[in-house]
Amino acid sequence: MNNPSEKVAIGIDIGGTAIKGGAVTSSGDVLTQRESPTANGSGLDSVIAQIATMVSSMIESLGLESGHVVGLGVGVPGLVDYRDGRVIDCANLPGWENVQVAKLLGDRTGLRVSIENDANNAALAEAKIGAGRGSESMVLLTLGTGVGSGIVLGGSLWHGSDATAGELGHTIVQPGGRRCTCGQQGCLEVYASASATARRVVEAIQTGAKSVLSERVHRGEPLNSADVVEAAKAGDAEGRQAWDESCRYLSIAAINLQHTLNPACIVLGGGMSAAGEFLLANVNRQCEDMMSSRLASLPDIRLAQLGNDAGFIGAALNAFGI
Amino acid sequence: MNNPSEKVAIGIDIGGTAIKGGAVTSSGDVLTQRESPTANGSGLDSVIAQIATMVSSMIESLGLESGHVVGLGVGVPGLVDYRDGRVIDCANLPGWENVQVAKLLGDRTGLRVSIENDANNAALAEAKIGAGRGSESMVLLTLGTGVGSGIVLGGSLWHGSDATAGELGHTIVQPGGRRCTCGQQGCLEVYASASATARRVVEAIQTGAKSVLSERVHRGEPLNSADVVEAAKAGDAEGRQAWDESCRYLSIAAINLQHTLNPACIVLGGGMSAAGEFLLANVNRQCEDMMSSRLASLPDIRLAQLGNDAGFIGAALNAFGI
Repeated sequence: MNNPSEKVAIGIDIGGTAIKGGAVTSSGDVLTQRESPTANGSGLDSVIAQIATMVSSMIESLGLESGHVVGLGVGVPGLVDYRDGRVIDCANLPGWENVQVAKLLGDRTGLRVSIENDANNAALAEAKIGAGRGSESMVLLTLGTGVGSGIVLGGSLWHGSDATAGELGHTIVQPGGRRCTCGQQGCLEVYASASATARRVVEAIQTGAKSVLSERVHRGEPLNSADVVEAAKAGDAEGRQAWDESCRYLSIAAINLQHTLNPACIVLGGGMSAAGEFLLANVNRQCEDMMSSRLASLPDIRLAQLGNDAGFIGAALNAFGI
Repeated sequence: MNNPSEKVAIGIDIGGTAIKGGAVTSSGDVLTQRESPTANGSGLDSVIAQIATMVSSMIESLGLESGHVVGLGVGVPGLVDYRDGRVIDCANLPGWENVQVAKLLGDRTGLRVSIENDANNAALAEAKIGAGRGSESMVLLTLGTGVGSGIVLGGSLWHGSDATAGELGHTIVQPGGRRCTCGQQGCLEVYASASATARRVVEAIQTGAKSVLSERVHRGEPLNSADVVEAAKAGDAEGRQAWDESCRYLSIAAINLQHTLNPACIVLGGGMSAAGEFLLANVNRQCEDMMSSRLASLPDIRLAQLGNDAGFIGAALNAFGI
């Protein structure tokens, strides 16, 4: 399957519910991959052990010798300082605050370890081998529980002066607006994440609006953005309104990115991007409605191509130093 | 005054009312400078002739030989494509739409000519020898009739994929808000420019609010942001409110820049920055109030240092390829 002389990097994407990993070549080919539920309840040490086992399992299954593995790249769903391999804050992984994860994993695996924010890794992967392939600059927005993001400029991840760049989910798009879990008001992620989209429908129904989703909400069933998409496609007014509003804020984010960075493209990923053209057409239409064509061309907005694999592929590319 | 073997670039900053120029060394020292009212009414050709005269006057007065002048850098208050030296759109200079200004000036002066947006030039100057000296990344906001901006990343101007980056004045900070001259609604520049600040006080007085500035407004006298600052300092409620609101939107812009680019510093220039600490303290306080400290440190916001000379100094540095 693999050319035995070809170098490989191991990429690991740690999520709150699952850990995904793969052995990846420098051109982004995945030679083998793994997935297992995050051993979250048992704390930091057990997750570190779980990753080490996943790494050695892949190396062994491919019959790789140590000289063929250039390193281990890891993505974490939280604030990371890539410079010293430290996880600063990680809401979904208890006990991961201010931990030298690169050192812990390096000691366990004997590999050179690089740590990144998970959305940064996904952005790198989409920019190199996904929707942004061939673009010198690209911004990824991942629309899930929150809005993650990563910025690639001049072909490399842009980290900023304190390694906190690329948190577009917490740009303020509605001054004085809804409170975000981060403490700010009016963040993009409280308006345009998959969760926010579903939450607005639930709130509307709970305060008396009629919708094809009313019964499910009254039974206490949770909704997700796919339910909203289905309702909107069926002509449900509440579903339509919630979806339009999310797309409106995504359009504002895209317009603001165009006026700020003018990236070659903006890529939408995460759960909500499963809506495909239904998402893209709406966001594009609202960009056309709201943006002045005198100052810049409309942003080139695309759907992510790598799905849930973007995180570990980007982690591996990052370990290659790509 | 100048070392005869030292290379010099000529920088020219074209404004709607005045043209400023200087002969500048690669370290940003200004050897001589000129200023004259823009020969605007007489159209493009007369302004080009005026610039050529200013350039040769400086070269002659310094006794420079052609080998010592590395080039001519020009700043234009409008949309520019630096790649082909073309002015695309320039609201304050009639007849400058889609003109190959670099070629026209090159033919006249015999110099290699580079064209930039004026705020980009000012950003480069502030980043190299002004408020951002020593910073690898910096964003300048100039607060005047509009809000100009320039972005320096990795020590160079960031132009984006179509050369339209760095138009932060047209990022949307109030969805569905006031109409901007660009056609969009809710742009930063309709809330936080010097003109916008004064306009809000005028509107409040015209609709019945009492202010120390009421008499002047009722007499039909124009106000500027310095009048608002003076009124606010004197405890005038309308002045205070207009000033606070402008600072609030500047804080939102700074917070969004911090979450997007995390630049080493954000520099405030233009007429409104003459308010000095009165501006800086207000913007910093509102950043502290609004921004989540969990995600990033507060932005490092500074006052511009080069005043009205930033434009031609940056134009010259740009001609050096700095």
